[in-house]
Formats: sequence, structure tokens, C-alpha cells
Amino acid sequence: MSHVAKKRKLDKTRQDTLYFDSYSDVTIHEEMIADHVRTNTYRMAILRNSESIRGKVVLDVGAGTGVLSIFCAQAGAKKVYAVEACSIAEQAVKIVKHNNMEDKVEVIRGTVETVELPEKVEVIVSEWMGYALLHESMLNSVLYARDKWLKPGGLILPSKAELFIAPISDPVVEDRLHFWYTVKDQYGVDMSCMSEFARKCIRNSDIMVNSVTVEDVLSHPARFAELDLHSVTAEELRSVQGHFRCESFGSAAVNAFCVYFTVTFPCPDKPHSLVLSTSPFKPETHWKQAVLFLDAPVEVVQDTLVTGEIRMYPLEDSARHICIHMDYSIGQEKRQSKTFSIPDWSSEAQP
Amino acid sequence: MSHVAKKRKLDKTRQDTLYFDSYSDVTIHEEMIADHVRTNTYRMAILRNSESIRGKVVLDVGAGTGVLSIFCAQAGAKKVYAVEACSIAEQAVKIVKHNNMEDKVEVIRGTVETVELPEKVEVIVSEWMGYALLHESMLNSVLYARDKWLKPGGLILPSKAELFIAPISDPVVEDRLHFWYTVKDQYGVDMSCMSEFARKCIRNSDIMVNSVTVEDVLSHPARFAELDLHSVTAEELRSVQGHFRCESFGSAAVNAFCVYFTVTFPCPDKPHSLVLSTSPFKPETHWKQAVLFLDAPVEVVQDTLVTGEIRMYPLEDSARHICIHMDYSIGQEKRQSKTFSIPDWSSEAQP
Repeated sequence: MSHVAKKRKLDKTRQDTLYFDSYSDVTIHEEMIADHVRTNTYRMAILRNSESIRGKVVLDVGAGTGVLSIFCAQAGAKKVYAVEACSIAEQAVKIVKHNNMEDKVEVIRGTVETVELPEKVEVIVSEWMGYALLHESMLNSVLYARDKWLKPGGLILPSKAELFIAPISDPVVEDRLHFWYTVKDQYGVDMSCMSEFARKCIRNSDIMVNSVTVEDVLSHPARFAELDLHSVTAEELRSVQGHFRCESFGSAAVNAFCVYFTVTFPCPDKPHSLVLSTSPFKPETHWKQAVLFLDAPVEVVQDTLVTGEIRMYPLEDSARHICIHMDYSIGQEKRQSKTFSIPDWSSEAQP
Repeated sequence: MSHVAKKRKLDKTRQDTLYFDSYSDVTIHEEMIADHVRTNTYRMAILRNSESIRGKVVLDVGAGTGVLSIFCAQAGAKKVYAVEACSIAEQAVKIVKHNNMEDKVEVIRGTVETVELPEKVEVIVSEWMGYALLHESMLNSVLYARDKWLKPGGLILPSKAELFIAPISDPVVEDRLHFWYTVKDQYGVDMSCMSEFARKCIRNSDIMVNSVTVEDVLSHPARFAELDLHSVTAEELRSVQGHFRCESFGSAAVNAFCVYFTVTFPCPDKPHSLVLSTSPFKPETHWKQAVLFLDAPVEVVQDTLVTGEIRMYPLEDSARHICIHMDYSIGQEKRQSKTFSIPDWSSEAQP
């Protein structure tokens, strides 16, 4: 079965095709619009920036169904170019028409790297964030649009992204591993020897997308990276990294790290910026959190130091897939290293 | 994007590889062993047939982790050949050893179509059922084993399989379609024109694997096919079909059909056979039920007649994938046809 064990190396065209194709079904758009935290925060951010949008020209990068573009038109934009590469653009056209916004919002089908706009723009809006922030690497397209189409001094919404990490104790993993010890009582067959195999399968190197509950978070999260969308370069995105330092709240067994992000929108007339957060301490979003399982749990007590470096970078054979490499120490334990990647769903079969 | 729209035509070797490979992770085995209805019914069935198993030779087709083989050894089998093609056989070897059954249970790695057994057997046991009973088409391997290795008059566990259908009203579909009408109130953007596109995506031709709740079932289920495992042929499996006739309980909107199966184990000393059921009226199993969505809902009242023919057959390009064709009438409505298939998970990418 070796030719399945090897990851299929897809050329860039096929990778892009799979990527865009995944947005051509209704389900993901339903999920995104129904994500109230996401959609309402963008709406509020656009309305609060209406001074900067009114009478101006806007570019919506990866416009999808065109909702953000319509928010911008409602905030007074003179013109919105809603650029969308995937076939969902056909729905955006219908929605714009249905909302009597054809004079304001122009849907342009194509990638932002290849389309020609009639003019440069004063505002870029985009909802580009993927799992673990950078999966799908749509941010590259936003930066391309910024460098090619945004006038100097123009506004980018959101303007900043931050990445956070915290050690966690995920109970499901331990329950799943313990399961094999319960079979003997249930069925009279001792399957405890499955635990080693189960451990390798479950404490694996996949970046899992899970809902982390507050009770499972073992320290205040630490911020390890910040991206200023006005200035960050595509080159810098090839390796987003930083140091982290956490102090555990109390006695627990760390079996994973949780990584999540926030994006921030400037609010000129308000004391506080508007933050769209995917923190486990905040209301859940469709992004949930990214969870990275350690190969074995480590005991901590109050104030145990959990420190390390974390680096996020695109997979070599598949630039839209994110990888995370960690070097970390927990308390007095030896320093550990582990590399994780988003599972390659396109080569998995499910029964 | 046309080359992604076409289903990838995989040769049989690759199909088989993907199929077996999906059983090499712990998760599916966890799911099957944790399915108490499944595992305990097999255990009870084997114990109740211990008269026919004691001192006899057994073949376990697709033995997985070897649990059923060990049940047979515990029931007094002289010898059990546990045939398993996938790498999980390595775990079966460990488990047999761990339970001190090496003298009784011999794990043989390979497909049942290619392995050589030292002798013919008196009993075949197999848990071969896939979604909608026939997805994965493992039954063909059981029949092959029966024809090649089972002595005349030998026992097959289970000995019978039955397929059932009932009209249902799935509320989730309607909620999902209605969602696009709620966006205007929530965000001030009228997205109701998305409903046609959403309808095509959601009321599609996929065989969905869902948990159907009892409240959603609109008539007594009708049995449409029965397979006698002692006599059914591989040729007959290429088209499993039958007629059905249901009378709806009361006023409702049928928007789908639910298909499920039972398998039956003979119980020589008991008045009733032992039935493993995946009916929505019975405790849930990991198989859930197969749900087939109509293109549009149809109103029914008390005693409305729902009749038709249903035919299950393997997909031409991918024999392990099942298709279902239905011709049906609901009340006075014109006769309808629709063809469904299990989605091709191996060519889908998820963001």
C-alpha cells in the first residue's frame, strides 16, 4: 500500500482547483454567514469605518457571496469591486442585483492576481483567515492586492492579525486511549495491547480543528506573532514565528497546545479597536481552534513554566497547506520538538 | 475547473488500496468496538450458536482486530482462521496473543480471495455490513469464502440480511434552506435568492449517512429485499431490488426516504432469532441510516400511499461504491425517478 502512504504531490493548478472548488458548494458559505461573530464583527467594523468608506472605492478580495461588499456599499462606498475566483461569484451577482446594488457593487470573476480593475482603490476589505489563521494562505492574495491596487495611505480591513498559544488538557484524547482498557469488562476480550497503536494514531502530527473548552485551557494564552497587514510581506509569510511563555494555572496534565488568532479593525472614533477573536474564552466561531497533540502528557502544577518557539510555514508540495513546528519545554522536562501539518483531506478515503 | 468536476476514475487496485487503507487507523475500529449494539449482538449470537461452533473450524472474513474470532474461540471453536487484508491484522495478532489464544486463533494476512487455508471450515462469521448495507461491497468476499471454504451444511453468521425503507421528514434540510431567508433580518442583506442554489446543493443525489429520529419517520417501514447468505450469488448482488408500499401515519411533508438494514443470526434453541437492527426505531448504531433526499417535499396526510421500486447496485467505475435508483409515487403525485450514490470522498478536498 506504499503508493497511498506517500502524500500525493499535486501541481499548483490542481491544488488551486481543489481549493476554489471547495467554495462552490453552499455549505461553507452557510457556515460563514451563520457564524454570527464573524459576520457581525465585519459588519460593525465596516459601519464604524464609514467615514473612510463613504464616497470611496473599495476592493473585496475573495468576495464569496458578496456580503462584505454589500456592507461596504451600505456604508456609503462609491464603488465596490467584489473579486471572486470561484463559481460562487454567480451567486454574488444575483445577490447584488436582488439588493439593488448593481450600480455600486461590481462582481469580477477571477483571481485577484489576474483581474484588471478600472482604477486603484482606497479601501481593501477581505475575510481571508483560514484554520490556524494561515491555512489556505489566502493572505498572500490580500497582500498582492494591497501592493497592486491599494492607493498609498489606503485602509485595510482588518488591519492586524495576532496569533496566540496556550497549553491545554484535552480529555477526549485520554478517554479514547483509555477505551481499549475497558473492552475486557464489557466483552471479555482484553484489548489493552491496542493502546500503543491507538496512541500513535491519536497523538499524531495532524493539526486538529477542535472546539477547546475554557476548562481545558491551562494558562493565560501567550501571543507569539503579530502581522501588520499594511506592511507585512509575502516573504515574511513564508515563516511566521515567535517565542511564547506561559505559566500554568494549577495541577493538570498538558497533552496538547491550542493555537488561535484574532484580527483587529481600526475604529477611528472609538477608544477601542474592534477585535474578531477565535479565543476559547470567547464565543465560538466556525474556525474553532487549532490543536496540536503532544506525544505524551506532561504533569504541571501551579506556575509551571511552559515556554518555546513556534513557527508556521506553508507545506513545500502544497502551498495552501500550513505546517507548524514547535520546540518547547514544560517545567523541568527535556526540551521537545514536534512538527504538525493540516491533514491532506484530498487523498483520504472514508468508508 | 472541468477536470475536477469529472469523477476521478480509479483503477481497481487503487480503489482497493484506498478501501483497505481506511481501516488501518484506530478510529474506525474504536467506532466499531464501541458500537455496543453491533459488538454485543455478535457476541450473543456466537455464544447462542456455541453448539454449532464447539470443536469446529471457523473462518472470520475481514477479521479486523480479531474480536469476533476470539468470541468464537471462547465459544469453544477448535480453530479460527482470522483473515484480514489490512495492516490492522498486526493488532489482531497482538490481541490474540494477549488473550492466550494463539493455539486457537490464527491470523492470516491477506484477502480472502487469495489466502490459502489449511482446510475447509464448518462456520463462517463476518461483520461485512457497510453503510446502506452494501456500501464497500464486502459481502462479495463473504460469498467467495462461502463458495470456496465452507463445507456443505456449514453455518454462516449472520445468515440473513434485510433492507427496509420508509418516507421521512428531515427538518434540518428545511431549516438549512430557510436560513437564506433569515439573513435580511439579521444583517440587512437579502440573500433569499440563494435558495435555488442552496436547494440544488442540499437536495442533491448523495446517499447521506444520518441519524434519523423516530419522530421524523412518516410510516411503518416496508421491507424491500432479503438476502439469504447461504444461497445468494455474486451475480444477484449486482442488483438488489424490490418493491415497497407504505401508508403515511398522518399529515406531514415527505422530503426524503430512509433506508436501513437488519441482519439475523439463527438461534437453534430459542424461539426467536437474534436480530442486529439499524432501524431508527431501535438503539442507534454507528451505521445510522441512509437518507435519500427528494428534489422537493411532497405533502401527505393519514394513509397517503407511498409506493415504488428501489434498486441498489455498485457504481460502474468504483465497485465498492453503492448506488440507489428509485422510482416512486406519493399519493396522487406523478411518478418520480431519482438516482443516488455515496459521495466520492476520495476526490473531495475540505478547507
